[in-house]
Amino acid sequence: MAIAYPHFIGSENASMDTGFPSLSLPTPLSPPVILTQDELKKIAAYKAVEFVESGMVLGLGTGSTAKHAVDRIGELLRQGTLKNIVGIPTSKKTHEQAVSLGIPLSDLNEHPVVDLAIDGADEVDPDLNLVKGRGGSLLREKMVEGACKKFVVIVDESKLVNYLGGSGLAMPVEIIPFCWKFTAKRLQDLFEDAGCSAELRIENGEPFVTDNGNYIVNLFFKRDIGDLKAASDAILRIAGVVEHGMFLDMATTVIVAGELGITVKNKH
Amino acid sequence: MAIAYPHFIGSENASMDTGFPSLSLPTPLSPPVILTQDELKKIAAYKAVEFVESGMVLGLGTGSTAKHAVDRIGELLRQGTLKNIVGIPTSKKTHEQAVSLGIPLSDLNEHPVVDLAIDGADEVDPDLNLVKGRGGSLLREKMVEGACKKFVVIVDESKLVNYLGGSGLAMPVEIIPFCWKFTAKRLQDLFEDAGCSAELRIENGEPFVTDNGNYIVNLFFKRDIGDLKAASDAILRIAGVVEHGMFLDMATTVIVAGELGITVKNKH
Repeated sequence: MAIAYPHFIGSENASMDTGFPSLSLPTPLSPPVILTQDELKKIAAYKAVEFVESGMVLGLGTGSTAKHAVDRIGELLRQGTLKNIVGIPTSKKTHEQAVSLGIPLSDLNEHPVVDLAIDGADEVDPDLNLVKGRGGSLLREKMVEGACKKFVVIVDESKLVNYLGGSGLAMPVEIIPFCWKFTAKRLQDLFEDAGCSAELRIENGEPFVTDNGNYIVNLFFKRDIGDLKAASDAILRIAGVVEHGMFLDMATTVIVAGELGITVKNKH
Repeated sequence: MAIAYPHFIGSENASMDTGFPSLSLPTPLSPPVILTQDELKKIAAYKAVEFVESGMVLGLGTGSTAKHAVDRIGELLRQGTLKNIVGIPTSKKTHEQAVSLGIPLSDLNEHPVVDLAIDGADEVDPDLNLVKGRGGSLLREKMVEGACKKFVVIVDESKLVNYLGGSGLAMPVEIIPFCWKFTAKRLQDLFEDAGCSAELRIENGEPFVTDNGNYIVNLFFKRDIGDLKAASDAILRIAGVVEHGMFLDMATTVIVAGELGITVKNKH
């Protein structure tokens, strides 16, 4: 990582997006560098942390990409480059990471307005709608990131999809454990036209339990589910559903790290 | 109770509702009987149990009115008047009551279609929309009663309101404990125009905890909240909200017991 990273820093380029400069791999004369997915995640994360200013209340995301951003914020605090940061963690795991890094923490009760959140995503569609929550923290993430003035999403390019669900991977829904099979069946039936199958998330042979004591049902789609806002309301109307992993109209900026460089997309 | 109840049985009368016969206090020659609220609840409950047939899967409600219905079902099973009933309880409390009465029980996983549910309500509006959940079991009630072919609601006449929230008493919302103050504030702000105040439900000096491990925020309104379906969706869209106590378009029959007799209202 230490080798690859300097190639990106400072090499500014025209962005795919009109409104924002981006960084990309520099000239053809540079030696070719093959980056791992984790290195791409770290590049996106470091770029996002450039948005952070001293004095901010910061939403701290959860997952393998967000972890790099939290590490970087801790580093800049230690260096004194950043000061007076208050972090709002989106999971117990991130809470522990931030404590270990010495980042001062609070919560939404004390800080109901968050200046900026940085977090990863499992899918990003062309309108910057997201699927999140494969890490299991979708509910706290949605609470914190829904309270943000700016929400910067950091992904490697494998997360870009033509439509939500298009990766063929899980769209998680948090449900109460009571009669979970019944709720899972109702979810599957709701998206019958999209060839939906619903599966309880299992970890170590047991149902995965969220920070809120709930279960996760993963939805898999064969086809586009269409109108996302209608889908969101229909899911939330099912008694037994707590929250779902579609984050609609929430991201203000998406930073995508790929082999050809960094792209910064802003919500119009 | 044993004195008052026979006055109602068998004295049929024209209903306030067009489609259904009702029972009422009989002729002016009868001695005047002052009934307590609990006696009215029991009368409504016994009337509802007349809808129950042998072989049915039955949703068993929770609360002081529903308790009478569950008692009556247990009695008819013991007498042999009813047979092959399967009960689906809507709370741990009702589960215990049904077990003590020897009512065979199951759940929505095993019986996803329920023939009939009988339950009380805290408010009933002219369109048979309900507020429920002051007993704290709104989520399981909504799951079971949403799976019913018929849902018979039993109330005393004090529960009739011109609009939901019109009693001035609580409209409960089940929320996750994480950052509950923040969620309560968002709920209060949502209904600012209706003069809403949001208060955490406290019991014995501690936050009341539901069967699902969540908190309850009680909403109090000074004015009508208007479009109920829009209000429902807006509440459910708040991350941190699990479910609310408005039961819209769910009741198929409401049985109202009052000093002037029983009224049976059917959903048109």
